Amino acid sequence: MYQDIVSTLLSQRVNVPGQFAFESGITVTHVSPGRAEGVLQVSERTNNPHFKVHGGALATLADTVAGCCACSQGESCVTSSQSMEFLRPAGGTTITCVATPKKLGRALSVVAVELYDDQRALVATGTFSFFMLPGTK
Amino acid sequence: MYQDIVSTLLSQRVNVPGQFAFESGITVTHVSPGRAEGVLQVSERTNNPHFKVHGGALATLADTVAGCCACSQGESCVTSSQSMEFLRPAGGTTITCVATPKKLGRALSVVAVELYDDQRALVATGTFSFFMLPGTK
Amino acid sequence: MYQDIVSTLLSQRVNVPGQFAFESGITVTHVSPGRAEGVLQVSERTNNPHFKVHGGALATLADTVAGCCACSQGESCVTSSQSMEFLRPAGGTTITCVATPKKLGRALSVVAVELYDDQRALVATGTFSFFMLPGTK
Amino acid sequence: MYQDIVSTLLSQRVNVPGQFAFESGITVTHVSPGRAEGVLQVSERTNNPHFKVHGGALATLADTVAGCCACSQGESCVTSSQSMEFLRPAGGTTITCVATPKKLGRALSVVAVELYDDQRALVATGTFSFFMLPGTK
Repeated sequence: MYQDIVSTLLSQRVNVPGQFAFESGITVTHVSPGRAEGVLQVSERTNNPHFKVHGGALATLADTVAGCCACSQGESCVTSSQSMEFLRPAGGTTITCVATPKKLGRALSVVAVELYDDQRALVATGTFSFFMLPGTK
Repeated sequence: MYQDIVSTLLSQRVNVPGQFAFESGITVTHVSPGRAEGVLQVSERTNNPHFKVHGGALATLADTVAGCCACSQGESCVTSSQSMEFLRPAGGTTITCVATPKKLGRALSVVAVELYDDQRALVATGTFSFFMLPGTK
Repeated sequence: MYQDIVSTLLSQRVNVPGQFAFESGITVTHVSPGRAEGVLQVSERTNNPHFKVHGGALATLADTVAGCCACSQGESCVTSSQSMEFLRPAGGTTITCVATPKKLGRALSVVAVELYDDQRALVATGTFSFFMLPGTK
Repeated sequence: MYQDIVSTLLSQRVNVPGQFAFESGITVTHVSPGRAEGVLQVSERTNNPHFKVHGGALATLADTVAGCCACSQGESCVTSSQSMEFLRPAGGTTITCVATPKKLGRALSVVAVELYDDQRALVATGTFSFFMLPGTK
């Protein structure tokens, strides 16, 4: 059943203590066909030298959530390339990421991400391309 | 003197305990005009769900080192956009990043990065664009 | 008046015989604050070696329409960087491009583009960053 | 023999009158394993509204030459994504593009491009990802 796939994805693959995303303060909060969401808990620990959220923390959030979107039906995939635009300094208490597919293919999938601060201001956007691993689903 | 600028950049802006890059296991090891280098210490803590280095950890390393390259003469800057290509799974003990400028401008600078594993295999590349903050140097 | 700005933009800057976009079969059809649209007339002349629309023709359409979106209030700008994803082979009789802003800034603007074929299938997407030229509007 | 592959690639797939690249003033001048080169003949016909070479013409040159690099051993491929950075206004009489691989894979290849004007100034750079078509070589 679909809920089992999502439940396994969240508990065994992304929200896993010890891994980079989790240890960076990231939780994937929602996965359904065609959509994934996640949150980065902002703290001093996520700062860059300007005391804003580090672009790498935003990229980690985006990559993690986009990957869940690409693999939301139980597939397995690896990121092949990505691009991001940082639209304004990111701060506040949380950054929320919403990922939606541009294309879900057998070999390649492309996912768009939008990252918002806790005032719902768009702080960054990006596009992630995934190579879908054969033999999985 | 130039060495003072570099020394201040390294100790007060990037290799700073508590900030995201440092806490992710990243140290900037070299800055000179037209070049910056840094290292990510690989551990379970930098893993993605495939037990390889998370793309977000690679992006954090790249962004940090590229920023040092763009600001290597004492300027201040923020990342405006970036793109990365993940060429092969990244593992081993360390990932090294080398950043060189494509263009150093007054308003915009563009920096290329190459990321290698401890066997000198190229694992990822990227291009980072920086908006140079006015009134700094 | 706003209509004058748009009219000047279209007739003196983009839909100009002899320039690359026009000679490639591209017409900008609509500009308003926060939106621009354009059309590429598909022909043998716009083909790549696979007898589909060349990625460069799609990039030309996207760059032209995105630039109109970034400068839709009379500004002047140059493209600083872009990224595109080619989602499926592009054919048919026309390719339509819709551009909407991710951010309109004083120094930098970022514009998203979506390209559709004549069956309304999404064939490509992209993100264009523009450096806004000082002293214009 | 390798020269036959190259000769076929050049004469039957890229330097073909009637196709977009050729009609845009582009000729691929060299292909060997790990390298391809091409030239854009600059004219009024390749201009943007600022009377410089249109970013789309540069993208067409880059895409064409990068594709030859990715398929330099007789494979067939399609562009899946690309990114470009426009470093300075492009003018003069010719723009030369040099493409070298970042990775040549069975499923995906990644190629870097550098574009120079006739004074050997670097005017643009880019990265092109290709999906390698199965069953070709």
